[in-house]
Order: sequence, then structure tokens, then C-alpha cells
Amino acid sequence: MEKEKGLLIVLSGPSGVGKGTVRKEIFSNPERNLVYSISATSRPKRPGEVDGVDYFFKTREQFEEMIERGELLEYTEYVGNYYGTPLEYVKKTLEEGKDVFLEIEVEGAKQVREKFPDGIFIFLIPPSLKELEKRIKNRGTESDETIKNRMEVAKEELKMMGLYDYVVENDEVKEACRKIKAIIEAEHCRRFRIQNKLEKLLGGC
Amino acid sequence: MEKEKGLLIVLSGPSGVGKGTVRKEIFSNPERNLVYSISATSRPKRPGEVDGVDYFFKTREQFEEMIERGELLEYTEYVGNYYGTPLEYVKKTLEEGKDVFLEIEVEGAKQVREKFPDGIFIFLIPPSLKELEKRIKNRGTESDETIKNRMEVAKEELKMMGLYDYVVENDEVKEACRKIKAIIEAEHCRRFRIQNKLEKLLGGC
Repeated sequence: MEKEKGLLIVLSGPSGVGKGTVRKEIFSNPERNLVYSISATSRPKRPGEVDGVDYFFKTREQFEEMIERGELLEYTEYVGNYYGTPLEYVKKTLEEGKDVFLEIEVEGAKQVREKFPDGIFIFLIPPSLKELEKRIKNRGTESDETIKNRMEVAKEELKMMGLYDYVVENDEVKEACRKIKAIIEAEHCRRFRIQNKLEKLLGGC
Repeated sequence: MEKEKGLLIVLSGPSGVGKGTVRKEIFSNPERNLVYSISATSRPKRPGEVDGVDYFFKTREQFEEMIERGELLEYTEYVGNYYGTPLEYVKKTLEEGKDVFLEIEVEGAKQVREKFPDGIFIFLIPPSLKELEKRIKNRGTESDETIKNRMEVAKEELKMMGLYDYVVENDEVKEACRKIKAIIEAEHCRRFRIQNKLEKLLGGC
């Protein structure tokens, strides 16, 4: 019997909106069958981040080798650093019938949409632009110049939400997580996704 | 400011699958903003059913007057009885920004699909045909002839699931309810439904 493939869930949104926080909360109590695809990056580790948990931390040279070998599903250079998704792991996990969760930048999500049009694309938005600026500032690890740069990029990124299936406001983290989990649950109930199972039932008619 | 309209949620599925049980469970602990649209019927009250709670119980004559006056969103005659949805209440409630939940027969759902193509159509299926027959028998209020008739109708109804957006298996009632609530939550996050709100946010860019 053909095994049902997993869903590719892509969480993205403007810089500073809190994608990482939301993703961590989701995986603090994950649904069975939901697997996080760890990104690779060439940016320096921030305090508290762990290699192989938050990211696979690479040097620029290592990252560029991965690009050349076609080992990335998507990648982007953002404020001077590379971010990308190792392809092999995603494919293998979907084939096993597990859902794969990507938390990636907007530019990368665009590349994934082209390669996996059936993916579920969720755009995380801030309650307001003012709140977004506050969050970027509060992170406290960036220079004034970087903050200004990030706000400009974020505004451009917000305009990309037309490419997404769902939009979730990240006002309260737990509430945003609840909505994202509901979206995943609902997508598993979409008729066109479970046609095989249904035909089996109808076969008895 | 334009108020966002509510969603029309339509739960249907073959006779005997347990639509009523699932609907009651959902409304035993309803989400704020979800309103049940009580159907009208000409069938006799079953033990435990209450007029104005389970159905508006009407005589055949009263029901036919409602049809003539165009007061029904949908109606169907099923195993000798009429079932239908009063239209005015549905329209008014959606305008108020509340979600309206209909639990109706398959034939009625088809009529609603034509009038409200943007509704969310959920099809409840049994785990198997054998289990469906068991449920119809266990109801214990029908004659052998009626049971046979209902099984034939149910098999035809199962073939209609192609018209639905979502399919939920009613194996365990609480699990089916959880999925239906997730579907409603997810649909509220669909980008195209919340375009107004998003444009307001983008207006700040």
C-alpha cells in the first residue's frame, strides 16, 4: 500500500517578528509526526544558541560548498549571512510520512514555493510596524545601523505575504502556536490530500 | 470600518454517521463566535429531543408553507420527512460577524454549496461501512426496512464527498470535534479571508 507523504510546513515572516520564538514553542510540545528541519547558517552563534539544535553553524566557505553541490532546498544571503535548508533531510522525512517544519526567511520561502507548490505556507505578522521595530530593538544584539537596515528589509518582506496560504498574527506566542497547530491539523483533513483513504472506504459501496 | 463577515460552516455526511452527536459535542463547549443554526424538520421528535434545541419541529403543512414563502436556505425530503435551514437567521448572523454552523443532510449541503460557494464544507465519514451499519442499527428506532433503506441512501451519499473541502473520520467523537474546531480556526487564518486587516498593516509601510 502506498504510504501517505508528509506535509511540508513553511513558517516565514519579516525579520524580527518572532519566527524562532514561535517555532521553539511549537517544538517544546510537538505533535507526533511533526519534525523540525534545522537550517544551516553562516551567521555567528548568538548567546544561548546550540549547533545542531538552533542551526547548523557553518563558515562562509563551508556554506558555499553546500550551494555548489546542490545540497540546499533554499538559501538566502541576509544582512551579510547565509541561511539555508539542507534538501536531503526534507525529502527523506516527507517520504517517511512525517510532516517537516521549516522556519525560514521570506526570500528562502519563495524558493521553496517554486519547488514544493503543495507546501503549506504560513506568514507570521506583527500586530503593527511599531511593535515590530520594538522587537528588533529589544533583541539588543544589533547595531543601530543593522536595526535600521532590518526594518527596511522587514517592510519589503511584509509585501510578500500574497504568496502565502495563511497569515497568523504573532501577538501572543502561545496563541500563534495554537493557530499554527490548527492549520496543520486542518490541512491533514483536506479532502484532496486523503483521496487514497477515501477510495478505500468507497470501494465497499 | 467594514465588519468582517462570519464563516458558514457546513457539517454533513451519510445518514447514521453521527453528525448530531458530533455537533452536540462541539456545542457542549463552543468557541466564542460559533453559532448553531437550528434546522426545521417535519419528522417526529425522537425520545430526548427538544423543540427549538435539536430542531424546530413542524407539521408537513407548516414546512411546505415555509418552502413556498422561500424561507429556507436549503431543504430536503429524506425517508419521508422534510429537513431544512431557515435562511433569515443564517444571513443575519453572518452579517454580525459570527460563524454559523449547519449540521445538515447531504442533499441540503449540495444546495448550500450552490448559494454559498465560500462556505466551509466538512464531510463526516464512518471508519467503515460495517461500522456505519452498526450505528444505524444501534439507534434502535427504525424498522428493518428503514435500516436497509438508510444504508442504501448512505452509500449514495458517501459518493458525494467530492463536493467537500474537508473530510473528518468520526471514529472517536472528541477527536472528530477537535479536528472540526481546528478546521474552523485554520480557515480564519486563510490569507484571502483577512485581506482587509492585512492591508491596514501594510498601509504603514
